[in-house]
Amino acid sequence: MAAPKTRAGARATLRDVARIAGVHPATASRALNEETRALVNEETAQRVLRAAEEVGYRPNPIARGLKTNRSYTVGVLIPDLTNPLFPPILRGIEDRLEVDGYTSLIANTDNDPERELLDTQAMRARQVDGIITATARRQHGLLDQVLAAGLHLVLVNRWLPGMPISSATADDRKGQRLAVQHLIELGHRKIAHLAGPLDYSTGFDRHQGFLETMREAGVERDPELVVVSEAFTEAEGARLCGKLLDRGREFTAIAAANDLLALGCLDAFAERGIDCPGRVSVVGFNDMPFAARFQPPLTTIRIPHYEIGTAAAELMLERLQGGDDSPRHVRLDPTLVVRGSTAPPAS
Amino acid sequence: MAAPKTRAGARATLRDVARIAGVHPATASRALNEETRALVNEETAQRVLRAAEEVGYRPNPIARGLKTNRSYTVGVLIPDLTNPLFPPILRGIEDRLEVDGYTSLIANTDNDPERELLDTQAMRARQVDGIITATARRQHGLLDQVLAAGLHLVLVNRWLPGMPISSATADDRKGQRLAVQHLIELGHRKIAHLAGPLDYSTGFDRHQGFLETMREAGVERDPELVVVSEAFTEAEGARLCGKLLDRGREFTAIAAANDLLALGCLDAFAERGIDCPGRVSVVGFNDMPFAARFQPPLTTIRIPHYEIGTAAAELMLERLQGGDDSPRHVRLDPTLVVRGSTAPPAS
Repeated sequence: MAAPKTRAGARATLRDVARIAGVHPATASRALNEETRALVNEETAQRVLRAAEEVGYRPNPIARGLKTNRSYTVGVLIPDLTNPLFPPILRGIEDRLEVDGYTSLIANTDNDPERELLDTQAMRARQVDGIITATARRQHGLLDQVLAAGLHLVLVNRWLPGMPISSATADDRKGQRLAVQHLIELGHRKIAHLAGPLDYSTGFDRHQGFLETMREAGVERDPELVVVSEAFTEAEGARLCGKLLDRGREFTAIAAANDLLALGCLDAFAERGIDCPGRVSVVGFNDMPFAARFQPPLTTIRIPHYEIGTAAAELMLERLQGGDDSPRHVRLDPTLVVRGSTAPPAS
Repeated sequence: MAAPKTRAGARATLRDVARIAGVHPATASRALNEETRALVNEETAQRVLRAAEEVGYRPNPIARGLKTNRSYTVGVLIPDLTNPLFPPILRGIEDRLEVDGYTSLIANTDNDPERELLDTQAMRARQVDGIITATARRQHGLLDQVLAAGLHLVLVNRWLPGMPISSATADDRKGQRLAVQHLIELGHRKIAHLAGPLDYSTGFDRHQGFLETMREAGVERDPELVVVSEAFTEAEGARLCGKLLDRGREFTAIAAANDLLALGCLDAFAERGIDCPGRVSVVGFNDMPFAARFQPPLTTIRIPHYEIGTAAAELMLERLQGGDDSPRHVRLDPTLVVRGSTAPPAS
């Protein structure tokens, strides 16, 4: 079989070498690195080295110049793996790290600060090179500890205003603006907001987006129609939607701070025989898997979760490979996805 | 505040100590163990020791007698975190390990044998005490390597016939029998089977369950109505259901080897305007999150995923704590959940 050629004139990449050698990019990376070559089968390593020679591959000169004592492992802390938005973020992180020969080890903290502390200690003890975390609260002593221990740290899906820590997130404020603008354009004025926990940047920024949009549109806001959840869960959404309905204030739409909260609203409506969107419209946030299959299919804000993961990994690799390590915040654009759970208010 | 008492006569447990000290069981465990006490805040450690004294707590004498050089970390290999059955299994594993002071580190192998190898190497290098894996194929050289390295190994959700490795799974064969019996009782005779990959025990055992049940019921089986998938995914379900329909053989029901494959069938039906269950019934397997929300709500086999996770952790702890380490296979009972995707065949 003739070896596939790389594009004319393009600098050969690790992926080119891997493709020609018929191995995974992570394997190629390990074979090319003297410190990790022993992890690879010898025959395979020779094939990779020949492929690199053939295409004239040169490793990243900055990375190459480093004296390293690396574990080539990055720890990833996730608050709740049963929330379906995290698996695609993780896959993005893993795919990007792997291209540069890094493996990720994940810990599920279950939103429990004590478990988070134990997981972080376990990762430090296991000598990870850095930690990517989605668990950040706005007040967060743990992060100070991680930074003090000299570990590289990147936030994913969350960020901490005022802290010098790089982050990759969606533009949450803009996303919630799109959701509320959609309701206003449909003719809604009495709009309730089911906010996320305000000590997470996701909950806080989306709440700000709601407030701003209502103010700019000159829509009067009823403070009784804003409720703040303690967790981004379906059960919490059902509980708070029930509370809203029990208050007896009139509203024709709910902007929920995520899809699980929106799903809880659908549960509360089903229990009380309230038609959605006939009597109340609901818009979620995330476009989680299966959101199009709900009854009604959920209007929501689509977030590029996989790309948020790859961006976080990219930020980590920049730090590990000795590039610029001044804090950077990558904000990815959300989009509105209109489905069946929103309609003009009943006249 | 008076300290809560333990039940009269009952031997005090770690959970009792943790409750009285007002800490997490994992923290209590670390505080009580001289080797790990330094990981806990000193004031907290003293509180835990006082609580243990108060209730007369004595650690497990077998575990106590061991000379250990432990990392108190267990590695968990998962083939695909975006498959929604794995997060509850993980939560079960973590919750159970944590009670005994162990932390879990997870790696997502993405069904990629090379990534699996790299992840296992990373975990060995990070000195985990044992590995719980859901990635086992029926032919699997990697497991031999892990065992040869002297690491404790437990399989979760999968097992390997003929290998001396403990496992915690559902009774997959029985589950598929329940699904096919349900279709036969509804009056179906022309039943197609969308099998899972046969090199996983889940795919293999469910396929055996299908064959047995058809044979015992004296239902003639059309080999053209059995198709084997390459992965437990929605896309693969849609592809294979399309293939079944293109063959032009008559069938009134499909027994799919998991819910994602069943969901792919619903996609293929929607595309071709085929009514489910009016023209074809579908039964899935797993009762994954949101299965009740599909259109139609999915009839399926419920698996106690969380309990499978805790059982796997229990098997690992038995090994780590020096109890019996002869191979054991824990099989948990599945149940049939009848929803809207199955009905008697059109007459």
